[in-house]
This record gives sequence, C-alpha cells and structure tokens, in this order.
Amino acid sequence: MSELLMKAKKAKEAASKLVAKTTKEKNEALKAISAQLREESAYIMKENEKDLQYGHEKGYHDSLLDRLMLNEERIDAMADALLDLAELKDPVGEAVETIERPNGLFIEKVRVPLGVVGMIYEARPNVTVDASALCLKTGNAVLLRGSTSALHSNKAIVNVIHRALNKVGFPLEAVQLLEDTSRETAAKMFKLNEYLDVLIPRGGQKLIQTVVENATVPVLETGAGNCHVFIDETAKKEMAIDIVINAKTQRPSVCNAIETVLIHKNWANNHLRDFIESLQKLHVELRVDEEIYRQFPNLTLATEEDWKTEYLDYILAVKLVEDVEEAIAHINQYGSHHSEAIISETKEHVETFFQLVDSAALYHNASTRFTDGFEFGFGAEIGISTQKLHARGPMGLPALTSTKYVIRGNGQIRQ
Amino acid sequence: MSELLMKAKKAKEAASKLVAKTTKEKNEALKAISAQLREESAYIMKENEKDLQYGHEKGYHDSLLDRLMLNEERIDAMADALLDLAELKDPVGEAVETIERPNGLFIEKVRVPLGVVGMIYEARPNVTVDASALCLKTGNAVLLRGSTSALHSNKAIVNVIHRALNKVGFPLEAVQLLEDTSRETAAKMFKLNEYLDVLIPRGGQKLIQTVVENATVPVLETGAGNCHVFIDETAKKEMAIDIVINAKTQRPSVCNAIETVLIHKNWANNHLRDFIESLQKLHVELRVDEEIYRQFPNLTLATEEDWKTEYLDYILAVKLVEDVEEAIAHINQYGSHHSEAIISETKEHVETFFQLVDSAALYHNASTRFTDGFEFGFGAEIGISTQKLHARGPMGLPALTSTKYVIRGNGQIRQ
Repeated sequence: MSELLMKAKKAKEAASKLVAKTTKEKNEALKAISAQLREESAYIMKENEKDLQYGHEKGYHDSLLDRLMLNEERIDAMADALLDLAELKDPVGEAVETIERPNGLFIEKVRVPLGVVGMIYEARPNVTVDASALCLKTGNAVLLRGSTSALHSNKAIVNVIHRALNKVGFPLEAVQLLEDTSRETAAKMFKLNEYLDVLIPRGGQKLIQTVVENATVPVLETGAGNCHVFIDETAKKEMAIDIVINAKTQRPSVCNAIETVLIHKNWANNHLRDFIESLQKLHVELRVDEEIYRQFPNLTLATEEDWKTEYLDYILAVKLVEDVEEAIAHINQYGSHHSEAIISETKEHVETFFQLVDSAALYHNASTRFTDGFEFGFGAEIGISTQKLHARGPMGLPALTSTKYVIRGNGQIRQ
Repeated sequence: MSELLMKAKKAKEAASKLVAKTTKEKNEALKAISAQLREESAYIMKENEKDLQYGHEKGYHDSLLDRLMLNEERIDAMADALLDLAELKDPVGEAVETIERPNGLFIEKVRVPLGVVGMIYEARPNVTVDASALCLKTGNAVLLRGSTSALHSNKAIVNVIHRALNKVGFPLEAVQLLEDTSRETAAKMFKLNEYLDVLIPRGGQKLIQTVVENATVPVLETGAGNCHVFIDETAKKEMAIDIVINAKTQRPSVCNAIETVLIHKNWANNHLRDFIESLQKLHVELRVDEEIYRQFPNLTLATEEDWKTEYLDYILAVKLVEDVEEAIAHINQYGSHHSEAIISETKEHVETFFQLVDSAALYHNASTRFTDGFEFGFGAEIGISTQKLHARGPMGLPALTSTKYVIRGNGQIRQ
C-alpha cells in the first residue's frame, strides 16, 4: 500500500477517535505541542538548516529563503499562537439550531468535526504547526502535504508534534505528513474522496488553481484578491485618500490589499491631482485609463490586463467611472470576488454596492485590509474563502466543522 | 459558441439581475408560473405524450414511464407546490451574524444567492418545475440538464415558465434548459467553474457518482441511504419493532428507509422470535448473520455484500452485536452516513451513539423516515445532503444561499 493510502486510512481511523475528545483534552494537546516546540527548538532549527542549505544550493530567492527560515523567535511565535488557540471557544458540540416538531420530535443541529482534512501548502513550515493545531482544536485529523523545499523542517515539526501527542494520549495519526511530495501522489490525493473530507490548499494562485481544477474531494478555496476601492462622487477627500493609501501600501503583498481604484468622474474633477500626488509621494506606480492619461501623460496607460492583475506590489490601476453602476459592473467583471470598498456619503449608493457587488467582503468607508479572521474577531483564521459554498470570506474555527442532526423521540413513526 | 457556453454565460448575467429582486417580486414570479402551468396544462401534456410515445417504443419499464407521465392532477400538484413555496420565508437578505468591533466597524454576515445552479437530473419532469422554483425563490439562476427521455416535456415546461417570467418582468435566462443532453456536454458542464457556482445532481446513485467523480464545480451531493436501526439491550420491545417496521416498510424505495437492523444480543435472547415473526408477517425478506441463521435456518444467510447494500425493497439485513460500540463501528464502516436510529432506554448509550456515529441524522427512539425537509419543518427540500461541506442532511432554502460580509465604517484604516 502506498504511503498516501496508508496514511489516509490511518487518518480516518484517528478522526473517529478525535471526535470523542473533550474540549479540555484538545486544549491540553495544544499546550503540550506548544511546550514541546520550545523544548525542541534546537532540533527544529538544525533540520530547518538542511532545507535552507538545499535552498541556497538551488539558488532560491531571498524572499523564499526568508519564508522557509525558522529561528528561536519564530518558533516562539508558533508556540505562543498555540496557547492563544487553546483559549478560543471550541465550536464542536455547539447546537446551531433547535427545532421542536408538533409530533414531539426534538431536533438539534450540532457542530461536529469534518473528519479528515487534506492540507496542501507551499514553503512556509509554520503552516505545518498552524494547520495541525487548527485541525486538532476542531477534532479533525489532518494529512499534510508540504513542499519538498521544506521537507526536513516539516518532518522535524511533525516529530515534535507526535512526541507531544504521545504525552497526552492522542493518536499520533491525528497529524501526519506525506513524505512523498511528488506531483503524481498529490494528484492521487486530490481524488481520495473515500478518506478525505476536504482539501485546503494554501499558497500561490497556481497551487490553488491546480487543486480546484483537479480535485474531486471538496475544496475550501482561498487565495486571490484583486480588490477594489470605489470613490463615489460624495466621498470625503481625506477619508478616500487615506483609505486608498492604507489598502494599497500598508502591506501590498497580501490578498486583501487593493489593486484598482475606480473614481467617480465628478470627484476626480475636484480631487484627482491631490489623489495622484498623495500616492506618488509613497512611490506607488499608477496605471491609469485613457481619460486620466490625457490629463497626466507622465503616468502609465493601463491595458486590459491591468484590470485583471493582482500586483501584490506598489502598483495601482486607476479608472474613472460614470456612476456606481459602472463601478459595480467593473468589479464583478474583473475582480476575484474577495474584498471591495465604497467611499461615499450617499446611503443609496452604498446599499446598491452592498447588494450588487458579488464579493466575500464589502466595506463602506473602511479599508479592505480588515478582511482577516483576527480583525473580524474570530481569534484564528484558516484562510479567506473566495468560494461560495460552505464558507465565504475569513474562515474561523467553525469553517473546519460540519453539522449533524440529532433527534430525540419517544417512539415516533412516520404516518 | 456552444449551447452550453452561451446559456451558462447568460445564466450568469441573469443571476446578477436576480440578486436585486425583492422577496415580493420573486413570490409574484412563482405565482405567475403556477397560474401559467394550469393554463397551459394541455400543451404540457401534449408534449409529454411525445416522450411517453418514445419511451414505449424504446421499451422503458412501467415504473420509468410512470415517473415520466404528466396528467392534469400532477400538473395541479406542481402548481400548488409553487404557491406553497411563495409563502415560505425568503432566506436572502437575512443577517446570520453581526459583529461590533472595538474600532467601530460594524460587520454583518448576510445571506445572498449562490449565483448559478447547475441541476442535473433524470426522467421526472416535475424536477424541472421544482428546481426552477427553488432557485427563483432564492434568487439563483438555474441551468437545467434533464434527460433525453423527458426532453419534450422539459422544453414545454421551460417554455411555460418563460411565458410566466416574461409577464412579471424577470429575465428569461433565469431558467434555461440544455437541449443538448449528450454525455460530452454534461462532462463539460461539470467543469464550468467560470459560470456555475454549484452542481446539484438528482437521481440514481450512478448519476450522482458520475457528477462527484468528474466535477470540479462544487457539488451538493445527495442520495444514497444505507440506513440502520440499532436495538439496544434496554429497548422497549413494542417500540423497537414498530420503529423497524415503519422505517423498513412505510416506503421502502426511499433513501431514509432502513436496510440493516443491528440487535443487542441480550435483547435478541428475549425478543428475536417476535421480531422476526413481525417482519415476516409483512413479507419482509430477512438476511441474517450466522448466529441468527443457526437458530432460524429457514432465513437467508447474509453475505458481506448485504451489509453494504441499499435494497430499497422489502429486504432487511439483521445482525447481532455485543454492545453499542460494535453497532457504531458497523454503521460507520458499512453505512452511507445518512440516517440511523438507536432504540434504547440507556441515556449513556444514546449519547455515545449520537457522538460517534458519523451520519447526517441520528435518532433516539424514532423512525429514520423523518429525515426529510418537510418533516423537519423547512417547508421545502432541495434534497438530503450526504456530504459534510456546506449542508448536511435535509436541505431547505438556506442551502441554496451563500453569505457575504458587509462592513460599515467611518474611515477606519488598518494599523
């Protein structure tokens, strides 16, 4: 039997044990892992060094090497996060709905673990800890498929997790790492509906697309953010510029940063020059539509491609629109259905925007950078779902649960 | 452009219009369709006759021809169901969660339509009306892919729906039927992630499996029910036998009917003979494990295959177990995670059963036949989900919705 099949089968067995663990037991497991990580930080760093060495030899980018690197501080941060997670409310067991029927049946819809989560991710070894911990907290078994470049680090981390799980009497198969990181095996994993309840890809857009296009196991899709701000005719000048600057430059590399600003032509008549200068001061490259280009020929003329692009960089596309309807149509056509903001003092336009824009998170007079599980107050984040089924937008712990109906009767039969 | 691509694209356009329809407008549309169906019943029956004719020529089974057949009474029933649906609460627009953040952001999680639903179904032309109506009520556009055998009926029904939609100013593309019913086109439909938000297969197990195994569009999986009753040591004799008889014989052809009964050996010691005789009186064929077979050699000895089979007939597999744990293990191994019941007066066993059995609906002292959207009080049913993501168990109107977060601020930017 292949490593994949064997581990998937064991994950399913482990899931059936995890479902019976109490909140207290699961939190003890998280704390044990936290302590074990700190205790074995030297071992983890030694193994991580092998991945870094390999990365150097392969000529990886500095940014990739940085994402791969673990030091005392980063391991401490991982260990701290586990203690925070232990403090969070356990969604499992919560009754989300209760129904009393005229025939006396008492129906409860109760949150339960999903079962087995397949996590597919790229370089960052901290995802190994993060994903394992989120799954344990929600009573799920996890099958981890990390990248070859982080294999030594990931193996070390999973060894450390196993030593902690052993101390608290948890099945070690609750957390398993696939050591076979070939594409062929990944392709088989995508179709393992018998053992996996959900796949969660975490990483670049290409990875996520590969999983979505090839998986028959249900996928929790996260990722791409081609986000927009629409500055309406009645937007306050300072507020609009502050929000655009924040949403573009506070951290340009993340999915909830914006890529395009749509400006009502009447607002532009009064404030476009100030808007442009404010962004140029911060070294943001502007790619603008023809109308703006005619007034500011020093700027770059945007192409059709620009409206579709997630720059993740100090680049911003800017387009004038006639009205809120044109802004909405543009966003729905070119956006990735992630996060969009309208800056406006016209209530009616805000409501139209909220109703018609087909995205996970819509803001009035606030930055799109708030689309985040922690900023929403969830205390944890699995990712930001850009799909419409199961979960949409920032996903907290409940996204890692399903429900079941439990029905109590006293002999009812159907007529 | 192929019919599929053209209609899928138009469905997406229609979805963006449907999202703005009010509850009142959607209910008016349902009522208009109801009236139009009654008005044009002769036309529908005339077209239906062509399908029946073709079916006769092809030598279809009587049961298939019956499912295909439309008469005045059945059309009336469809029209009545539309009026009932108009009375139900519209889930769209409901705020399912509100969060106030310390920074003043006010976050609402609001129900919205999914977008475009791809419905793939077999013979029954009433599904054409039912699926269209459920989608309209929840603001979704629907792309229907029925079977070749019902093509004339389905075309006629969609024509009638279009004439009604036209009267109330709805986009006709809200409801579209694929006239190309080839397998090749269906296979393309399964992967049309750009335009379809969800696929819902309705029909036999083979159809559903084909969709699940080939689709990259998210699927709402419904279907198979290999359901169980476990009679515990402390079960009341009459109640246990009544529930088994109801769950097996009240309507054996449906997914929430049971296929296997697991009996605690101590209960069997006292009541097995009465149990067997009660079922034999109702002409239920019993397939039993070796231990029962030794005592009742006139019965059929069950094979491994029997534990896995959804008979949908007057056949019942029966097995003795040592305790509730063995019953749970059997159900989790052989069941289809649909509906299971425990008959017991031991509270502790009931809680163990509820916690450890991995199925959509679990009953204490009641028949599994209650797993049904109407019996749960939903007023409508999309199907019974046997998957764990998005919706599990009987699906009412909310299963046809997604959510979005709308966030109101006054200039908040992220620090």
